[in-house]
Formats: sequence, structure tokens, C-alpha cells
Amino acid sequence: MNRHNLKHPHKELRKRLGTRFSTDDAVRDAHARDASYHQGTLPDAVAFPKTNAEVADIVRICAKYKIPIVPYGTGTGVEGAVVATEGVLCIALNEMNRILRVSPDDRDATVEAGVTRLQLNTHLTKIGTQLHFSVDPGADASLGGMVATRASGTSAVRYGTMLDNVLGLTVVTADGSIVQTGSRARKSAAGYDLTRLFIGSEGTLGIITEITLKLTRLPDAVASAVCAFPTVAAAVDTVIKMMDTGISIARIELLDELQMDAVNKYAGLDYEVAPTLFFEFHGSEHTVAESSEIAGKIAAMHGSGDFRWATDENERKRLWQARYDSYYAALNRRPGSVGYVTDVCVPISRLAECIAKTKALLATSYLIPSILGHVGDGNFHVVFPLEPNNKVELAEAQRLSDQIVDIALEMDGTCTGEHGVGVGKRNALEKEHGEAIDLMRAIKHALDPQNLMNPGKVFLSPQT
Amino acid sequence: MNRHNLKHPHKELRKRLGTRFSTDDAVRDAHARDASYHQGTLPDAVAFPKTNAEVADIVRICAKYKIPIVPYGTGTGVEGAVVATEGVLCIALNEMNRILRVSPDDRDATVEAGVTRLQLNTHLTKIGTQLHFSVDPGADASLGGMVATRASGTSAVRYGTMLDNVLGLTVVTADGSIVQTGSRARKSAAGYDLTRLFIGSEGTLGIITEITLKLTRLPDAVASAVCAFPTVAAAVDTVIKMMDTGISIARIELLDELQMDAVNKYAGLDYEVAPTLFFEFHGSEHTVAESSEIAGKIAAMHGSGDFRWATDENERKRLWQARYDSYYAALNRRPGSVGYVTDVCVPISRLAECIAKTKALLATSYLIPSILGHVGDGNFHVVFPLEPNNKVELAEAQRLSDQIVDIALEMDGTCTGEHGVGVGKRNALEKEHGEAIDLMRAIKHALDPQNLMNPGKVFLSPQT
Repeated sequence: MNRHNLKHPHKELRKRLGTRFSTDDAVRDAHARDASYHQGTLPDAVAFPKTNAEVADIVRICAKYKIPIVPYGTGTGVEGAVVATEGVLCIALNEMNRILRVSPDDRDATVEAGVTRLQLNTHLTKIGTQLHFSVDPGADASLGGMVATRASGTSAVRYGTMLDNVLGLTVVTADGSIVQTGSRARKSAAGYDLTRLFIGSEGTLGIITEITLKLTRLPDAVASAVCAFPTVAAAVDTVIKMMDTGISIARIELLDELQMDAVNKYAGLDYEVAPTLFFEFHGSEHTVAESSEIAGKIAAMHGSGDFRWATDENERKRLWQARYDSYYAALNRRPGSVGYVTDVCVPISRLAECIAKTKALLATSYLIPSILGHVGDGNFHVVFPLEPNNKVELAEAQRLSDQIVDIALEMDGTCTGEHGVGVGKRNALEKEHGEAIDLMRAIKHALDPQNLMNPGKVFLSPQT
Repeated sequence: MNRHNLKHPHKELRKRLGTRFSTDDAVRDAHARDASYHQGTLPDAVAFPKTNAEVADIVRICAKYKIPIVPYGTGTGVEGAVVATEGVLCIALNEMNRILRVSPDDRDATVEAGVTRLQLNTHLTKIGTQLHFSVDPGADASLGGMVATRASGTSAVRYGTMLDNVLGLTVVTADGSIVQTGSRARKSAAGYDLTRLFIGSEGTLGIITEITLKLTRLPDAVASAVCAFPTVAAAVDTVIKMMDTGISIARIELLDELQMDAVNKYAGLDYEVAPTLFFEFHGSEHTVAESSEIAGKIAAMHGSGDFRWATDENERKRLWQARYDSYYAALNRRPGSVGYVTDVCVPISRLAECIAKTKALLATSYLIPSILGHVGDGNFHVVFPLEPNNKVELAEAQRLSDQIVDIALEMDGTCTGEHGVGVGKRNALEKEHGEAIDLMRAIKHALDPQNLMNPGKVFLSPQT
């Protein structure tokens, strides 16, 4: 892509950004990939803007020289949305890390895109609010990256995903305009919902630079528990029944027996090696007590073992740490492996069947992955620990993943519940959306006619 | 618009639809306008499709002859989104009124666009579910119309708006394609959020024909109350404090003293003539009792009068009927008048100030409107009872409305919380969104290049 021109734009970018423009090999290498097996190349250079105006100038310079752009948050994604491709400039947003405003009465805040989830939550505690930002994907991701991938995680069953927790955005569009979407109003019927269009657009429609977020009250009381079940189906039926009663569940996570074994070994724990649910209840003291009691009864009706409760914060942290470490525990089943993770999501009434069909499929393979999932949302992950750079194993994981996607789509589900499309799910996206892909492509072309905003991501072929 | 061609398309449409294609004057007149003061002309004809395929064929015939299309639900909107303009074909969706599927375990349903809110809720009771569709704009609107205008209403503070309660759509696009957006998965990160793009697009991007909706558990217990306050500010502060405690409020509505007087007179009631909050609490028996008690204490701290409780269903219905009748009560202040309603929404911390500034502005006018609002969301309406066809009064209401919008935008609010843009808020939309309007126009042009989908709505000038 006009590589003969690169000298000149580099000069312009360096003039604008000084030392915050880098062609250093180590810097380029640190911004070449995400947390997954997806391989990229090195970006030609990395820019570290500090302001909207700087991002806009970078985009305008890149537009002038037709240089493609990849925005970069913390690199904690797993579908390759930020992997560098030939000739790209990486815009790293980690120096846009200011918390611009917190309004406790309105339960909202505005942050720059590089602010991380834990940075914001630490700040909210420090300034004495009883508020937190509730979306919890596990990793300490940047909030800009979480917007870009429509992230969710363990708490979505109660508090929603990024779709539900963003009021407005500042976006630098492909022509270098700085555009505000949404407002601070809690609801609006004022025209097309550009905010939701940019949420999940993975940098392909513009660079997200600021975010106005909804904040959530910290619960008065929290209780956590772990409980084993005879089968995955019994565990899922328990969850359906619990949702039916309206009890106050904030997290319900499923780990299969292989995953529980992995967790025990990784963290030195002694949980039963069986399909297991991890629960967390949030609410008033009374609500949590009431919900816990009802949950125990429903689980017992489905043949569960006893609940192992954790009400004090340390015990609760230890319990959930086992869940958060699941991915590493799964990889630890095969030391030195790299992870390949699926992410389908189906209507909860089909979840047990979807997992059963997935397990039957996996039984035909020499790969032996474990399963964990956000069962309240119908979302589960198959984690394959693969030998690094083993193309045969990668192809086998991809073959299985494609079939798992087919199983989920057959059940009115989606190929990706929370990880996004990146490069890993582009084929699956075509299968899932059919003609709707043409509308997405038309929007991409309308908003980025030169195809310079994270090209090659989301779509196999972006132009209409 | 090609009126010399109209004969031929009419022949084609009649051949396709038979008696479900009408050029009858009374039918055209019944589909010329909405529930507001906005005046249209008569549509050239009205089509009553029964299937997606029929809608697609109608759109294709209209595309061929460049005939603009207005989709029509129940005509209960108030911003003129369905008023007919010169040469349009009206597509009335009331014969697409089948409930296609209800899945209690998944708490979702798929309906055709002409199904109304009460039709669905009656059906959910009849088939024995403990579920309802929670968005409640007051009118028995069609669900397609509610999607198209991103409707909300009194229950949004707890259950969200149409934005939060739709999983997927079937849409007939400008080229006559039948497109599915979304899936039945509770969450997805699979590409651009077309579902949310069509929600609130007011028929300008395509015709919404089917909707997959989230359903909500009916609460175990409900309690309602009414409580007077010395000032609007005291009422709003009470609400902010209540939201802060996390109590389980499902509705909080504010009526000012003029509106309470109107309600008393309209419904033969004896409420105190003062700024008043209407509350509804949903949850378990204990939660509702606990929330009610805390709410009473907080209100008393802000100088409220006593709560008037209504726990049995008839009493509750009577209490809320007074709220639902507010619009008609407001018009009844001036018998024979037509309504002009504003719809701004601001961060709740600014709501008292916004209402105070609005009241100061209104004091400068000879019009004496009343105020009511969804105070938990920061959304309020000024209802002007106007003399029909009095252009001077209409101009005065518009002048005041424009200034109320300016007050709200100054406070990071929106010009329309729930009524949509239609023709009434097109100027305000430009003021609110600035450069973001260019992105909306680019999307409109990309998805409807001939500008035949409800042209003249949302945008003053839709083409880029």
C-alpha cells in the first residue's frame, strides 16, 4: 500500500507527535498481536496520541497517504481484531487514559478510551462513590477495546454487556472528523443509534476515543457458592428454573468435569470433578439470603451436591479466582500450549443440547478441550490447548470450531457471544448473517470509503 | 414524483394484493396522519400486506416506479413519523398481526410487526405464562411502531426501552430484500448491530415486519403509591436519593401542580394540587415491602406529604389510570383543544433545574401548559392544549418547544426521550447531533439510495 510514500507520512506523523511516534522494532512487536493464536505482521509504526485532536490529525495524515490504521487497546482480545496487517499504522490508545468526569447522582462517567476497567473501578472507590462499572470480561481490558468488541463476561446475566452500559461515544471517523454520538440522557429517540453501531464495530468504522458509561450501584450484600451436578443438562435446567423464579443472580458460570479437574490441579483446590455451577447473588441482605435459599432448593431438585458457600470477601475472591483462572488452568492441562477458544451463544432452552452435541463432536477428535460458560446467557467456550505452531492441530481446532458454530446457528444462536469477529470469525459471520452482511458492508463502505479503518477485520471482503 | 406513472404500479399492486390494495378515500384518510397536530396529505393508496413476501413485492414495485413508502402501525405516534406526503404509498401493517412463537424458557417471542402490545400481553396470560412484554408507552401501539420509534414509557426506569428489549428483526430493505438481523442469542458480538440501527429508524431504512422480543417475568408483588411534594425540586431530589439506595422501583412519574389539578378534574379525584410523584414497586413480597418503607422515609426527608398506597389491583389500576389519562386530562383543561407535546430528557441531576428553567420560560408566554414526566429517566413532557388550526398558538408552542430543547441540550440531554423525530424534531435533531448527522445521512443514503423509505422524516434533507 503505497510503501514508497511511507517516508513522507512518517515525517509528518513524527512532526505532529514527536517521541510519541515510534518505528522501533520492540514497540512495533509489542503492538503486533492480541492474546490469541492469531498471527500478524509488524505494524510499520506505532502512534501514541494523547488527545482527540491528535487522533484526528493521525487519521487525516493516514487518509492522505492511504495508510491503513489498526487501533490498539490492551491487546487482550482473542479473535485477532488488533493484529497488524501489511503496511498498517497502529494507533495505541494507552496514553489516552484520563477519567474525564464522574457524576454519582447520574451514575455515569466519561473516560478516554485507554482507561482500563480496573483503573475506573479503583478510581470510583477512591473518590468515595458506592458505584462500579459492572461489565467484567475477566481481563483488565481498556474500556475502548471493550466498546469496540462489544465485550461482556461473567456479570452480563444481571448487568448486561457493553451494549447496555454505554450512553455515548467520541469517535474519530475515517475523514478525521471528531464526532459525538449519543448524549448523557438515559434514553433518547433522537435519530439513528450511532452509539450502538460503533459498539462492536472493532475499529472498522472509526477510532473510539472517549466513552460515556453507565455506572452501577455496588450491591449491599453478595454471596457466592459452588455446586456440583450429575450432568451438564441438570446444571442447565437448574439455571433455567432459577431464572424463571426471578431470584437475584449476578453471575452463573458452568464448568464441565474436565475444566473442574484442570481448575483443581491449577489452583490446588479439591472441588468435586463434575459439571459445576459457580453462583453469585447480589442485592439487599434479605434478597441475597432469600435468593440463596431458593437457589439451593432448585439445585437439590435437580440432583445437585451441597452448596459450598463463600460469604466473606476473601473466601469469595478465592472461589472466583478459580473461575477467572479457568483459561490458564485449561492451558495448564498441556504445559506450554497456546489457547484456541470458541464462543457460541444459543437460547438457554437449547444450551444443554448444544453442549451435548458439542461434546459428541469433540469425542470424534484427538483434541480434548474443556468447556466453560456464561450459562445464564447461553454462552459457552470450548478451550483447546494447542501445541504452538502446530498447523495440523490448529486446523483440527478450526474444523471443530466451524462445526460448533453450525450447531449453534442451527439453534438460532450466534457464532460469537462476546469475543467479536476479528479475523477468526469472518467466515462464521457470513454464515450467521446471510443477506444482512450486505447491509453491514454498505455501512462500512459509506463510513470508510477508502477502507483504511482496520481493514480485513470483521469482513472477508469489505467493499460492496 | 412520477405521478404520470402511478396508474401502472397501481395495477401491479392490485394484481398482487387484490382487495388488500385500496385507493378508497376513507381508507386513505384513515392512514394520513398520527395522533398529533402534524398535518399530512392523503397517501395515493394503502396496501395491507399479510406476509414478508408481500411487503418485499410492494417495495420492489415501488422501487421500480420510484414511489415513496410510508409504513403505518396504529397511528398512535406524536411526531408525525407516519404522516403521508405527496405521492406516497402507505403500507399498513395491521394485517401482519400473528404471534409467531413464544418460548417461556428463553423468555422471548417472535411477532409480526402489527401485533400490539396489549395483544401480546393478553396472549401471554392466556397461554399460561408468567411473562409479559414490559415496555409500556401508554397507547396500545403496534410493536413494529414501537421498534420504529424506539418507544419507552413509564416502566423504562426498571425494564428499559425498546432498545433493551429486542433481540432481532426481520426487515424488508429498500431493494426488496428480506433481511434477518440479530438472533435469538441473549448476547452477540457478531458484527455491526443492525438490530439497534433499525430500532428508532422510523421506517427510513426499511420496513420492520417481524420482531423477536425479550419477555419479562411478572413481578411476584406490586405496590403503588402517590405522594405530594412542596416543590418539583424536592420531588426530583427524592427520586435521585431513591435510585441511590437501589430500591426496587418500576415506575416513578412526576406530575406538576397544573397537571394534578387537571387529573383531579378529569377523573373526579381529590389528590392534593401540588407537584406529585406516582410510584410503583415490583419484586418479591419482602422486596416490595422493604422498598416501600425506604421510599416513604426518603420522601418524608424531602418534606413530602403522606403516601397514599394502593396494593390491591383495582385500586392500583385506578391510581395509574389517572396517570395514563394525563394527556387527555391536560387537553381537557381547554375543551376541544389539540395537543402539542415536548419530550426532552436530561441527566437526572439536571432535571429539577431543567424543569425550573422550562417553567420560567413558560411563564413568559400566554400559553399555560402542564408538565408530566418519567422522572426516573430524566424525561418530561410539556403538554400544550392548543386551539385547533390556530397558527399563532402553534407557532408560540413551537417557539417555546425550541427553547426547551435548547435548555436540555445545554445540559447534555436529548431533544426526544421517547417520541422520536418524525417531522416535528428534525430541526432539533440537527442541533443535537452536529457532525453525527452526516454519519446518519451517509447510512441513510447507503441503505436507501433512491430515498423512497419514508422520505422527509428524521432528516430535513436526507441525501449527503
